[in-house]
Amino acid sequence: MNTRKIIMDCDPGHDDAIAMILAAVQPDLEILGITTVSGNAEIEKTTMNALKVCDLVSLTDVVVSKGASEPLVRIRETAPGIHGDSGLDGPEMPEPSRSWSKEHGSDTIIRLLKESDEPVTILPTGPLTNIALALTKAPEIKDNIEEIVLMGGGTFGNWTPTAEFNIWADPEAAKKVFDSGIPTVVMGLDITHQAQATEEVIDQVNKIDNHVAKIVGELLAFFRSTYKEMFDFDGAPVHDVLTVAYCVAPELFETKDVNIAVETKGEFTAGTTLIDLHGVTGRKVNAKFGIGLDVEGFWKLMMKALKKY
Amino acid sequence: MNTRKIIMDCDPGHDDAIAMILAAVQPDLEILGITTVSGNAEIEKTTMNALKVCDLVSLTDVVVSKGASEPLVRIRETAPGIHGDSGLDGPEMPEPSRSWSKEHGSDTIIRLLKESDEPVTILPTGPLTNIALALTKAPEIKDNIEEIVLMGGGTFGNWTPTAEFNIWADPEAAKKVFDSGIPTVVMGLDITHQAQATEEVIDQVNKIDNHVAKIVGELLAFFRSTYKEMFDFDGAPVHDVLTVAYCVAPELFETKDVNIAVETKGEFTAGTTLIDLHGVTGRKVNAKFGIGLDVEGFWKLMMKALKKY
Amino acid sequence: MNTRKIIMDCDPGHDDAIAMILAAVQPDLEILGITTVSGNAEIEKTTMNALKVCDLVSLTDVVVSKGASEPLVRIRETAPGIHGDSGLDGPEMPEPSRSWSKEHGSDTIIRLLKESDEPVTILPTGPLTNIALALTKAPEIKDNIEEIVLMGGGTFGNWTPTAEFNIWADPEAAKKVFDSGIPTVVMGLDITHQAQATEEVIDQVNKIDNHVAKIVGELLAFFRSTYKEMFDFDGAPVHDVLTVAYCVAPELFETKDVNIAVETKGEFTAGTTLIDLHGVTGRKVNAKFGIGLDVEGFWKLMMKALKKY
Amino acid sequence: MNTRKIIMDCDPGHDDAIAMILAAVQPDLEILGITTVSGNAEIEKTTMNALKVCDLVSLTDVVVSKGASEPLVRIRETAPGIHGDSGLDGPEMPEPSRSWSKEHGSDTIIRLLKESDEPVTILPTGPLTNIALALTKAPEIKDNIEEIVLMGGGTFGNWTPTAEFNIWADPEAAKKVFDSGIPTVVMGLDITHQAQATEEVIDQVNKIDNHVAKIVGELLAFFRSTYKEMFDFDGAPVHDVLTVAYCVAPELFETKDVNIAVETKGEFTAGTTLIDLHGVTGRKVNAKFGIGLDVEGFWKLMMKALKKY
Repeated sequence: MNTRKIIMDCDPGHDDAIAMILAAVQPDLEILGITTVSGNAEIEKTTMNALKVCDLVSLTDVVVSKGASEPLVRIRETAPGIHGDSGLDGPEMPEPSRSWSKEHGSDTIIRLLKESDEPVTILPTGPLTNIALALTKAPEIKDNIEEIVLMGGGTFGNWTPTAEFNIWADPEAAKKVFDSGIPTVVMGLDITHQAQATEEVIDQVNKIDNHVAKIVGELLAFFRSTYKEMFDFDGAPVHDVLTVAYCVAPELFETKDVNIAVETKGEFTAGTTLIDLHGVTGRKVNAKFGIGLDVEGFWKLMMKALKKY
Repeated sequence: MNTRKIIMDCDPGHDDAIAMILAAVQPDLEILGITTVSGNAEIEKTTMNALKVCDLVSLTDVVVSKGASEPLVRIRETAPGIHGDSGLDGPEMPEPSRSWSKEHGSDTIIRLLKESDEPVTILPTGPLTNIALALTKAPEIKDNIEEIVLMGGGTFGNWTPTAEFNIWADPEAAKKVFDSGIPTVVMGLDITHQAQATEEVIDQVNKIDNHVAKIVGELLAFFRSTYKEMFDFDGAPVHDVLTVAYCVAPELFETKDVNIAVETKGEFTAGTTLIDLHGVTGRKVNAKFGIGLDVEGFWKLMMKALKKY
Repeated sequence: MNTRKIIMDCDPGHDDAIAMILAAVQPDLEILGITTVSGNAEIEKTTMNALKVCDLVSLTDVVVSKGASEPLVRIRETAPGIHGDSGLDGPEMPEPSRSWSKEHGSDTIIRLLKESDEPVTILPTGPLTNIALALTKAPEIKDNIEEIVLMGGGTFGNWTPTAEFNIWADPEAAKKVFDSGIPTVVMGLDITHQAQATEEVIDQVNKIDNHVAKIVGELLAFFRSTYKEMFDFDGAPVHDVLTVAYCVAPELFETKDVNIAVETKGEFTAGTTLIDLHGVTGRKVNAKFGIGLDVEGFWKLMMKALKKY
Repeated sequence: MNTRKIIMDCDPGHDDAIAMILAAVQPDLEILGITTVSGNAEIEKTTMNALKVCDLVSLTDVVVSKGASEPLVRIRETAPGIHGDSGLDGPEMPEPSRSWSKEHGSDTIIRLLKESDEPVTILPTGPLTNIALALTKAPEIKDNIEEIVLMGGGTFGNWTPTAEFNIWADPEAAKKVFDSGIPTVVMGLDITHQAQATEEVIDQVNKIDNHVAKIVGELLAFFRSTYKEMFDFDGAPVHDVLTVAYCVAPELFETKDVNIAVETKGEFTAGTTLIDLHGVTGRKVNAKFGIGLDVEGFWKLMMKALKKY
C-alpha cells in the first residue's frame, strides 16, 4: 500500500489522543491536518488537547484547526463523566507549544481536500459537525474523499439506550454524512467494545519504557476507571483508535456492507443508527460496518507503535 | 405457588401455538381465556389457529375471543415470510370444532379481569392492540392485573434494525401498555434468541411419541426453515413460549429492572424499545427485562410438558 | 329531506350543550344516541352534563353512554379555563333524573350503527377517541356511516398556535378517523369563528321567554366571558353547534373538498390538521371543509329552534 | 435615523430582485454585501440573478458572494412553478458584468459582521442556510447583529398547508436562527399577502418612465401570472420587499411580540412556524411578527423609489 493521506477530525478525548499517537508513527499514513470539534469536551479544550498530543508525538508541522463549537442545530452537550473536566484527564501534559490555525476546521478540511493531488481519507472520531459544514459549503469535495472511516453509532447505544455519543451529539450532521454517497467505514460500538484496554493491556503498555507509552498508560488507566464507574466495564473500549488501525491494517477487521440510516426525529431516538445487518429495510448499502476484530492483532499493532517512540 | 390465573392474548403463529401447548398442561396455571389479535397473520387466521390449537390440547372449555383486526392507528402488516400464509404453516390440523365467541377480545379481557376474585396475569404474545383497547375503555382494570408478561421488543430489532415485530406492528398500543404503570415482564429478543429450537431440540421433540409432540415437531421444523432463510439462524427462537415458561418457572430466568420507553415517532424508529440497561436515561423503572435464560432447564420444561400429552 | 338519523358524540361543554338543544327540536333529525368523551372536562362531568341537558330538552328516551375517559395513547388534558370546572359553568341545572347506560360509549356507537336499517350520521364534537375505538374494534361499521360531521381542526389553532383542542387532545384518534375513508365534513375554527355569540346575539336569546332559552343565555354569557379573557374575542364562537346546523341546513354553509391530514408526531405540532385548500400536497380529497357561513341564517335557525321550547 | 448597515441574503427570485431595487436607492441604507442561497432556483441561477440586478441598479461595488447550494441536512427543492426556470423569468436582462466573489456567502456574512464598526442588520429573503452556517461556524457574530429582518413563515403555509417555502426549504437552518437569541423581525405570509401587486399597482409601475421601472413591471406581470395560476390570487404578494420596507419605514408596519418555534420533525409539518399570537404556549418572546401593513403607504414608498431611477 502506498502512503494514505488522512485528515483526523477529532475531539480529544482519551481515545482520540491514542488514535493520534498510533497514527503519528505509521509510515503508511500521511497526516495532512488535524481538525477539532466540540464533543467529549468544549471546543477550546479539545483543541488544546489536540495541540498537546501533537507536541507529545512531534506532529508540530501538521496544521491544527479549531472547528465547530456547537452542533448544526441542537444544543451542545459534552461528556465530562467519561473524559474528565479537561476532556483528557489523567496524565500531566505541558501547555502546547503553539496555537491553533486561524482557519476554521471545516475550511481546513475543504482546503486540504482541494489541494491534495490524490483522494484523501477522513477519520472523524467526534461529532460530525465539521464534515457536515464542509459538505454543505462545498459539496464538490465529495470527489476528493477516498473514504470516511469514522467512529460512531452501533446496533446499540451508550449515551442513550439506542444512541452512541458521537452520532447523538449532532444527528443532523451524521445524517448529512451518511446520506452523502461518500464511501464510509463505520467503527461502531459493536466492534469498539471488542477493543477494551483491560488491566492486562495496560500492564503491557506500562512495560514499554518511553514517555509516550507512559502517557498512554495514564490515559488508559483514567479511561478505564470512568468506564468501570459508568458502565461497569472491566476494560475501557478505545473506540477512536480503531479508525486508524483500520487504515493501516484492514486485515484485522471483519466488516459487513450494510445500509445505515440516522434517526434525527423521534421522541427518544434521535441519534440512533439503524444498521441493517439482515437487509430487512430494502435500503441500499451505504457503509461498511465493523463487526469483528482480531483483538490480539489490534493490541500488537498498538504495542508495536508505542515501542517506536 | 398457588394456581396462577392467566389470559393469553396471542396471534398464533408457531411460537404462540407452542406457548398454548406448554400452558395447557401446567397444573400451576389456570387459563381463563384466550384472545386473539392480528399480527403474525390476519385476525381470522390467528383466531382459527387458536381454536385449532385448543382442540389439539383439549382446551375446549376456555373462551376464545377474536380481538383487533388492525392496529390502533397504523396500517396492518403481517409476517407471512415467517409463519406462512396461514400463520401456522407446517402441520396438517383439522378445522376447529367450534367458532369464536361473539365478544370482542378486548372486552373478554375486561370481563375476565372484573369477574376474577384474584389478580390475573396477562400473557400478550402479539401486538398489544387488545390490551391498549381494554386499558382505554376500562382503565380501572389495572387494579385486577397481577402482571403483564409479554413477548416483544429488545435492545435490537428483527422487523427493522431496531424494532421487534410485535411492538413495531402497533407502537401506540405498546406505548400505552409500557406507560400504564402495570407491573410488566418483558421477554425481548435478547432472551428469546437464547431459546432456539435447533436440530437437536427438534430431534428430542420428535422422539416423544404422541400426537401433540408430532405437531410441535412439525411446527418447529417449519419455523426453523423460515428463520434459516430470512435471518440465517441455525435454530428458530421460540419467542412467545418464554412468557409461559416464566410464569411457571421464573427460576430459569435472569431479569433486570429497567425503564423501557417505546418510540412512536421518528422517521425510521417507530416501534423501537429503549431498554435502559445502564440507567443512562434517568427514567424510572417500569419493567423486568429478560436477559438470561437457563436454556437447558427451559427445554427440559418443554419436553416434560410434551410428554404429558 | 327525510329524517336523518344521528349519533351525537360529545363532551359538554357549552357549545356541545347548545348543539344538543338545537338538535332536540329538529323534525328532520332523529337522535339515536348520545355518547360522551373526556375533553372539555373529565368524563364523569361531561356525561353528567349530557344527562342534565337531556332532561332540559326532554331527551329522556335517548340512550346516554359514557365513553372514553382518556385518549388512545396520550395523557388526558381538559379545558377548565374555557368551560369552568364543571365543564358547563354558568347556569344552575338540576341533577340528572337518570344515570348513564352501562354500555361503553364506543360500544353504543357500534351497536346503534349495526341496528340501524339505514346509514347513520355521527356528530363528534369532542376528541375523537370513541370513534377511533369503535373503528378499531369493528371496522365493518364504516359501511353503516352516512357521514361524520365533526367539529375540530382548522387552518390555525386555539390550543397551540397550530392545533385546535379536539384534535390536539387525541391526535391518534383523529388520524384514525381522517384516514378511514368515511365521508367527513369538518367544521374547523375557520368557520366556527364566524359563528360568534356577540352581545347582540345573547340579547336576542334573552328575549325569548322560555326556560331553555334562559339557560342558553346563561351558557353563552359564561362562554363569552372566558373567550374574552383567554382570546380577547368579542363573542364566543359556538363551535359544536355548527355540526347540527349543517345537518339540517347545509345551504347555510360553503365547504371545499380538500385533503386533511393529521400530524401525530412533531416536536410542537401534534394535533395540527393540514387542510390542503390549494391542492399543494397531491394527497387525495378526504373531507368537506367548512369555509363560509351564512351567519344571519345560522342565528335565525338557532332562534327559531329556541322559540320552540 | 442614521444610515443602517445591511446585508441582503437572498435567492432572487422576483420579489428578492424588487427588494434589492428598493434598497439600492434608500439613503438610509448602506448595503454591505449581497449573499445568495439556493431557494427559488438553484444557486448558480440565484447568484447570476443577483449580479444582473446589481448591474441594473448600479450596485457594482457591493460584494456578491455565492452561498449554500443545498440545505443543511435535507434535499434541495426549488420553486420553478412560481419564478420560472431561471428563477427570474419575465424581463430580458443582460448577462452580468462581473462574477461572484470567491468567498462563500456564509463567510462573507461572518467577515462583514466582524469588520463593521457598528451592528449590522441582516435581511434574509430565502432559506436560512447561510445564516445557520455562519452561526455554527462563528457563534460570536451574534453580538455584531443589530437585527435579523427576514421573510419566512406565517400562521399558514404556501408550500404545504402549514409551511411557507423559505422555512420549509431548510427547517433546521430556520430553527437555528429562531433559537439563536438574535432580535428577529418576521415578515410572514400574514403580512406579505397584504402587499399584493394587483393590476392597478402594475399599471402605476408601468407609468414610471425609466428602465428599472420597466423591468419591475415585467417582473410583477410574470409573478402575478404564476400566482394567479397556482393560488388563484389576483395580485402577486411581493413578500421579500417588505424586509427592506420595514428597515426604512417601520411606521408602515404593525408587529406583535411573539414566540416563534420551528417544527423540524413531524410526518407532515416540517418547516411549520408556530406563531404564538395568543400566548398559549408559555414560551418566551423571540420575534416581532408582522401582522398589519399600511398598504397604501407601502406602495407609495415603492413608487417613490422607482421614480428615483
